[in-house]
Amino acid sequence: MINTHIIGTGRTKFGVLNENIPELSYEAMFKSLEDSTLSINDIDAIYVANFCAGPFQNQLHLNSVISSLLPKSNIPIIRIETACASASSALYQAIISLNKFENIMVLGVEKMTDADNLSASKNISSAGDRLLDQDEGLIFPAEYALIAQQHMLEYGTTLDDLALVSLKNHNNANLNDLAHFYHKKVDIEMIKNSPVVCSPLRLFDCSPVSDGAAAVIISRNKKTDRNIKIAASAIATDTISLCQRENLTSFNAAKIAAKEAYKQANIKPEDIDIAEVHDCFTISELIAMEDVGLCKEGESKYLIRDGKTNLRGDIPINTDGGLKADGHPIGASGVAQIIEVVTQLRGEAGKRQVQDAEVGLTHNIGGIGGTAVIHILKSQ
Amino acid sequence: MINTHIIGTGRTKFGVLNENIPELSYEAMFKSLEDSTLSINDIDAIYVANFCAGPFQNQLHLNSVISSLLPKSNIPIIRIETACASASSALYQAIISLNKFENIMVLGVEKMTDADNLSASKNISSAGDRLLDQDEGLIFPAEYALIAQQHMLEYGTTLDDLALVSLKNHNNANLNDLAHFYHKKVDIEMIKNSPVVCSPLRLFDCSPVSDGAAAVIISRNKKTDRNIKIAASAIATDTISLCQRENLTSFNAAKIAAKEAYKQANIKPEDIDIAEVHDCFTISELIAMEDVGLCKEGESKYLIRDGKTNLRGDIPINTDGGLKADGHPIGASGVAQIIEVVTQLRGEAGKRQVQDAEVGLTHNIGGIGGTAVIHILKSQ
Repeated sequence: MINTHIIGTGRTKFGVLNENIPELSYEAMFKSLEDSTLSINDIDAIYVANFCAGPFQNQLHLNSVISSLLPKSNIPIIRIETACASASSALYQAIISLNKFENIMVLGVEKMTDADNLSASKNISSAGDRLLDQDEGLIFPAEYALIAQQHMLEYGTTLDDLALVSLKNHNNANLNDLAHFYHKKVDIEMIKNSPVVCSPLRLFDCSPVSDGAAAVIISRNKKTDRNIKIAASAIATDTISLCQRENLTSFNAAKIAAKEAYKQANIKPEDIDIAEVHDCFTISELIAMEDVGLCKEGESKYLIRDGKTNLRGDIPINTDGGLKADGHPIGASGVAQIIEVVTQLRGEAGKRQVQDAEVGLTHNIGGIGGTAVIHILKSQ
Repeated sequence: MINTHIIGTGRTKFGVLNENIPELSYEAMFKSLEDSTLSINDIDAIYVANFCAGPFQNQLHLNSVISSLLPKSNIPIIRIETACASASSALYQAIISLNKFENIMVLGVEKMTDADNLSASKNISSAGDRLLDQDEGLIFPAEYALIAQQHMLEYGTTLDDLALVSLKNHNNANLNDLAHFYHKKVDIEMIKNSPVVCSPLRLFDCSPVSDGAAAVIISRNKKTDRNIKIAASAIATDTISLCQRENLTSFNAAKIAAKEAYKQANIKPEDIDIAEVHDCFTISELIAMEDVGLCKEGESKYLIRDGKTNLRGDIPINTDGGLKADGHPIGASGVAQIIEVVTQLRGEAGKRQVQDAEVGLTHNIGGIGGTAVIHILKSQ
């Protein structure tokens, strides 16, 4: 892999926001430039990740929308979409493209909250198989409910384990003033008494519908001591329908991408200090821990029960609050994960700073793991 | 640019088809493999281009849909979308990614004809600016009508010139048994008497709503003597809204990308033997000829009047029928252009074969030129 450094990061608050897609994008883009040592004229290409502005906003061709924000610039801009993994795939692609460009911006953006609930559910379900799943009612809460049931049956994972994931992520979000649920007081009773969405998943097991944007700038060259190195970038794909899977309790694409990433970075799972993983539902955080090898299959329950993944535990996970509580503006989430790891490795995470974090991993998946992307970052 | 060869091509018929997205994709993919010397196991990555399956089919995450067609394969697959230029952008990206992968498939697919007319118009309009254009009624027939009016006013281009473009492309499609309008008898009176869609554009000035898929396989290595070399690949972007343009009669992004492409290939416009250009409306074919330098600005009318762009003319354009008559399954069109140039340069175009064609250019744009992609191909 080409020598790759993250030299700038910037994001908006996540949540129910008034801004439209160009406004959200502009804020994240220019914050990332401000954080780097570059001006917009130093950016050679942009990858824009977005999942669902077609159905939500009747706005495709987002690369041209972003070009419109850059007067007198005609640089290459390309939109990437791989469902919830869109922004991670855009970063993966941008890293490959560093052989052509010196400095690349990766922008993720999503605007979802002005749709009604039924439209939002339908639009999000487009990340799942239309022919085999959607038309049978298998939208994502239902898919992950089946997955959770199977994980509980096979490994003894409990409702309390799921609740602990939610509680941890809400606690972390309370230390992240850009999070969707910053300053929302959540306790274990609230979580356990929240309405059932699709059994066994309750409201607090589900990530919210959010707006937001996030951008990072990558470069072939290290510019300052605040730069963070990308040590690995790997992607794998799998079947889109749950019906086509042999195993419901792990995601094969994530395991394959993780294995490749560890090989690229020449490290083992036990070398990871912090991780951001895809927790669209609480069960997916537990499965992600297993898929990237932070524990054996079926043993994630012990880590969450023992507080190992808390902010002060051995392997803090989703220190920004994760998709669950930082929010899930789908096309932006993968970049937000990268920004949190960069912030931690730089030692700039304030109240939620993890001590001596030097190696961080991000795990992002699309749908029920039809796409999986893993990145490993190292402080210099 | 890395040494890049097109080693396989395959496409479906374009038109109103019964097949769904996976079926169309499968046919194009496996035809392209059959045409190459490779098996699916030799393909290292796939770029799938699609514009509008979100709104039309409620199916995003197409990279995972394609992965589902490849049992036991978990290779990197990424979806690219840049409106009507999607497939050309996917090829542009794939060429860059040849530094990482040896053989890459680029697949474009679109399924549009099962929507009603109003939905189709709305979905296609998502390639234009939501905030400044769509909400004011500036959908694409209206945008290109304004552009045509301005071109007529400024340069004396006439309704008859537009009709000649349509007639030529329908004549070419009559020699292409995969074309949407293969064997549709069209004469100049039919074109000139067709209903007005948005003045001055009539029905026969507009490309149709089509289904279809097209795939090419590119490789770092030449495998056989039928392989065609990619000599240039360039992209540029521009503002998305017509309101933000200084000039309506040419597309700046196309001019910039063409200039870059000629530089990469080290040739001049007069070295081009055949061209496939984006003719979503007849006026756009005329502007494309000017933007890529086949004539001066405002002088495309002379080429069409003199028959220079006919199949037996000096510079045949859209020999497959173009978007106008071959059809415009949006996400597939850019790959179909490449396939036509490859077929001509190989000397395998049958009744529509252009004699001694050695250098071909493809020009594709998104929206009203918010994205432009140019490729130059050479026989070995």
